[in-house]
Amino acid sequence: MIALPHEPFPELGSRLAQVLTKHLTAGGGTEPHLAAVIAEALARPGRLFRAALVWQTLTGLGWEPVFADSLACGVEYFHVASLLLDDLPCMDDATTRRGFACPHLEHGDATVILAALAFINRAYALIWRELAPLPQEMRLEANEFLDRELGLAGILNGQARDLRFGERPTSAREASRIAVGKTVALFRLALGFPALVGGARPAELKYLNGLCVHWGLFYQACNDLDDVGSGPKLGDSAARDAALVRPNLLLVLGPEAFTRRLDHLVRQAASNIDALVRINPMWLFLREAQEALVSGADEPVRPAVYSQAG
Amino acid sequence: MIALPHEPFPELGSRLAQVLTKHLTAGGGTEPHLAAVIAEALARPGRLFRAALVWQTLTGLGWEPVFADSLACGVEYFHVASLLLDDLPCMDDATTRRGFACPHLEHGDATVILAALAFINRAYALIWRELAPLPQEMRLEANEFLDRELGLAGILNGQARDLRFGERPTSAREASRIAVGKTVALFRLALGFPALVGGARPAELKYLNGLCVHWGLFYQACNDLDDVGSGPKLGDSAARDAALVRPNLLLVLGPEAFTRRLDHLVRQAASNIDALVRINPMWLFLREAQEALVSGADEPVRPAVYSQAG
Repeated sequence: MIALPHEPFPELGSRLAQVLTKHLTAGGGTEPHLAAVIAEALARPGRLFRAALVWQTLTGLGWEPVFADSLACGVEYFHVASLLLDDLPCMDDATTRRGFACPHLEHGDATVILAALAFINRAYALIWRELAPLPQEMRLEANEFLDRELGLAGILNGQARDLRFGERPTSAREASRIAVGKTVALFRLALGFPALVGGARPAELKYLNGLCVHWGLFYQACNDLDDVGSGPKLGDSAARDAALVRPNLLLVLGPEAFTRRLDHLVRQAASNIDALVRINPMWLFLREAQEALVSGADEPVRPAVYSQAG
Repeated sequence: MIALPHEPFPELGSRLAQVLTKHLTAGGGTEPHLAAVIAEALARPGRLFRAALVWQTLTGLGWEPVFADSLACGVEYFHVASLLLDDLPCMDDATTRRGFACPHLEHGDATVILAALAFINRAYALIWRELAPLPQEMRLEANEFLDRELGLAGILNGQARDLRFGERPTSAREASRIAVGKTVALFRLALGFPALVGGARPAELKYLNGLCVHWGLFYQACNDLDDVGSGPKLGDSAARDAALVRPNLLLVLGPEAFTRRLDHLVRQAASNIDALVRINPMWLFLREAQEALVSGADEPVRPAVYSQAG
């Protein structure tokens, strides 16, 4: 697939990796396997693409970096939890993640589930601590946002539909709808959510939502391309969509329409970014982010199967 | 074991069962298996012992019943999620819960994990919606409380240590410490948490914490007794502690010291309740709750293995 290595936000990455480690330390009393799964996940943070989006959005809107750190970390923890769970044998049955063996292989599925819950629990705690000083009305909106994107209408239902795709009819619309349910929801958490609590204007929120939809669909489509194009040479996770009967847009549309669709999604995303930059130049960082996303550099080894990866 | 059927808070139970169903409805777009797991869990709510404790505490402290409903529901959802996850093959590998087949047997482990996350996500949303009008200081305290009891220092680490108990030395102190990590944490969510956000006095919070510790240890000990005493006739989940090398206080202490310990825990709990009633007669409901707990009626079929059950 498209492959121009381009590291997004290189300086911010090391800052956020430190923050990530700081906010979830397994103390001495923590059961050793549980502590190990958490430590390994923190030691291999990937490019922290979503955390960087949160951080850039909040600091651009005037938040102090140290408060932006915590909220960025909270959103990234949700993402870490989703990766841990997605790799389980009962989900995508992956064996490697970010170049290392998946933790359930050494520490067991139960421990990985508990580690994911630790990340989720701490994510909520970090987010609600940082949002505590905000006006009640804004906190209520933020609460509804999290509930919607993380819950049955967002990530969870998307993942459930993905797992059960073989039981349903196949169409481009259906494959897109599944992508909206999961990939888009995590982009919304990384952009729409910090924009909302940072006090962005309604027009900005509208264009950000459009951007998240187009990025999410593009990202999902790239994974579909990986799955079909790479074959078994990339490892155990390649071509799993076909074996597991997962939705795959390339298989549904055919190569020509698929390429047109990728181009269309990138252009639509760029036009959303243009509109945002016209409102406020702070959104210029989104151009760099899009370049990273299109070049596949948001994740050192982009996993083939699960779309929220990275 | 001790078995005097005694239904706690019978009228409140049907009110709370309705509330439970109201706050998590899987819409038409929800993947059918995911919707089924959620619907089944809501249709078999047990006696809602923890929800009733939250509700009695909040209304006793002056909250309107309708607001108490939501917070009680939130705490109960955490409990429902823990039961769904505990029964998974990689955890306690249970086959029945509340007299019915565990949902992972029909709908698969992945769907059960997603359903548990749906309950957790909605629990946070309900809790933060109801706490939104509170002063910032109290919200920050509530946030720390949830983080501590749900996180690595509470339920998660307790469960991890329980699963890995075979790898560690056995002692009464160790078995008690594990019980404190998980069972006590869920009692604290059901009593200490609503007392905190309801504005109970520091002395009340202190005695409630003592009560939670003694109830938690008692509850865990009863499960240990069930496991050892009942043998396979109670179903697949009986005697699993021994097979899975779980901590079991009866096996560690022997029958005589174990009985003395049970008596001691009940008397200590009663003396905490007495102290609370002297401060405020509203805590009288705790006597009824203790009677239910001691008679085993907090759960129609008390599960043998996992201590947060019910």
